[in-house]
Amino acid sequence: MNTVTFFTSVQDQLQFVEGRLREQAGDEHHPDLRSALDHLLAAGGKRIRPTLGLLVGNMLGAPEEKLITLGAAVELLHTATLVHDDLIDGSLLRRGMPTLNARWSPAATVLTGDFLFARAAKLAAETDYLPLMKLFADTLATIVGGELTQLFSARGIINRQNYYQRIYAKTASLFEMSALAATMIATEDEEIRDSMKTFGYEVGMAFQIMDDILDFTGDPSATGKPIGSDLMNGLVTLPAIYYAEANSKDEDVVSLPNGGWKDTERVQRLVHAIKQSKAIEQAMDEAHQAVCRALSTLEESVASPEKEALEDLARFIVDRKV
Amino acid sequence: MNTVTFFTSVQDQLQFVEGRLREQAGDEHHPDLRSALDHLLAAGGKRIRPTLGLLVGNMLGAPEEKLITLGAAVELLHTATLVHDDLIDGSLLRRGMPTLNARWSPAATVLTGDFLFARAAKLAAETDYLPLMKLFADTLATIVGGELTQLFSARGIINRQNYYQRIYAKTASLFEMSALAATMIATEDEEIRDSMKTFGYEVGMAFQIMDDILDFTGDPSATGKPIGSDLMNGLVTLPAIYYAEANSKDEDVVSLPNGGWKDTERVQRLVHAIKQSKAIEQAMDEAHQAVCRALSTLEESVASPEKEALEDLARFIVDRKV
Repeated sequence: MNTVTFFTSVQDQLQFVEGRLREQAGDEHHPDLRSALDHLLAAGGKRIRPTLGLLVGNMLGAPEEKLITLGAAVELLHTATLVHDDLIDGSLLRRGMPTLNARWSPAATVLTGDFLFARAAKLAAETDYLPLMKLFADTLATIVGGELTQLFSARGIINRQNYYQRIYAKTASLFEMSALAATMIATEDEEIRDSMKTFGYEVGMAFQIMDDILDFTGDPSATGKPIGSDLMNGLVTLPAIYYAEANSKDEDVVSLPNGGWKDTERVQRLVHAIKQSKAIEQAMDEAHQAVCRALSTLEESVASPEKEALEDLARFIVDRKV
Repeated sequence: MNTVTFFTSVQDQLQFVEGRLREQAGDEHHPDLRSALDHLLAAGGKRIRPTLGLLVGNMLGAPEEKLITLGAAVELLHTATLVHDDLIDGSLLRRGMPTLNARWSPAATVLTGDFLFARAAKLAAETDYLPLMKLFADTLATIVGGELTQLFSARGIINRQNYYQRIYAKTASLFEMSALAATMIATEDEEIRDSMKTFGYEVGMAFQIMDDILDFTGDPSATGKPIGSDLMNGLVTLPAIYYAEANSKDEDVVSLPNGGWKDTERVQRLVHAIKQSKAIEQAMDEAHQAVCRALSTLEESVASPEKEALEDLARFIVDRKV
């Protein structure tokens, strides 16, 4: 089974998720809001978070209707946080498409994000399962808490612990929620819930580490971001951390916590050095190790096409180029 | 029983609500966020929304623990919407205290509002009652939808229908939710639920109409707003609507939808004229009628101190000066 096939195995279900997402825009009487929602949903990515939930739920025999509702809730929550994120960062493009705040006022952008939170919460409630609502609220608090930490932390800080916390809050928490929630509606077995929670967590961490590697190695026309954009914003990600640890006396490294990341020439030199160093490979290794830990949680599961699809998703995370 | 007494009757319970609210700030490891939450909660008003829920719930014998959790959820949701509201309006003061955005960046303000949404959703989930979660999500969507409508509607519009929709979304929806949710955790009787929903709705509409009257007649040092601030912002509220209906050819009235509200001199003349006219009294009458409709929903309830307290709350809404 290749990477295309694992998406194919949930293609029909993803269509229903898409339908639930579109409903949130379609029944909205407000023309401006409807067009904003349409724009956001059309600009949507691979729907990797709902796919994760669907694959986990399918493997465990979760009721399909609830899986689809859950998938839509997770994707809407993700979209809501992106809308506020882009506003905060002042980003004008995401996935190569104009962001909402590139075309709308800050006021309209704040409110559209809020509206998406409301709809995501409503979808989560429609799964008719209270522990899932609590998980939903906790995950939102984690994501927002992480954004606040990032906002208040000094830029240019080289800190491994800070990095892991940040990518957990930003990305892995929602992957973890998607996998755990799909498991919760399938079984009350605590061991299976723990395993699938770990699966989601590890896959999510690997996903963000890969994203951070692609910020150095990716094709800007595909990622939609210039090479080294994180470092230019003072965000020191895993490849830069590995490089800094091995070259702690490098003048460019030393300058980072003191605002060196604002110096374009310096950052470009640093990005070039990181790309030439072992740092990229070391970060890749770490992403692979996370995927290995994810795969090991599946060891005790009975062989099935659904299990195989889930394994393919985990491997896809580190093989992707965008 | 006077207005002080009805607050007194739930004073102990309100202390527990306050405790639940403070917990949301207290267990936050983030010092900046904690101080922001402390500031917001210290600046809190009369806690009229939780009081409404407590009084309704007490009358119907709802479990106290859940009523307190619900009260805290309602107040946090209210606070979250205010934080984003003040950011959108660029307000620097609320209830005479600096708003969050007066001291923080827009980014931090957006995220603090989001954090409060997350905590409000978590508290709502802790009531362990799914229909309440749906009500919570629907109410949030109503409030945000109303703000979007206000944002996109032309200012200066004189329209009764628009006005009622606006004050429902802005205020009455959360009063309605507070009363209905307290009823839902007390009884499954649909008739009682409908009655109490109506009670919350009518009291909420009266509350906002009074707020809009006080914008003309209140003491700026008490309300924290200059006289006529709504009209200066292009918001045509009930007193102005009554005046416009009676004086449809008044040049200042005619100018409003065409941007006349931006002309300070014109607005001051109009505010003065409205205050001298019957419009204030007519708007007051409407608020009183709403309170009467609220009180009539209690007619079939057995006489009790709790019922009396609820009646006093309804009357207090139209008697208040701030």
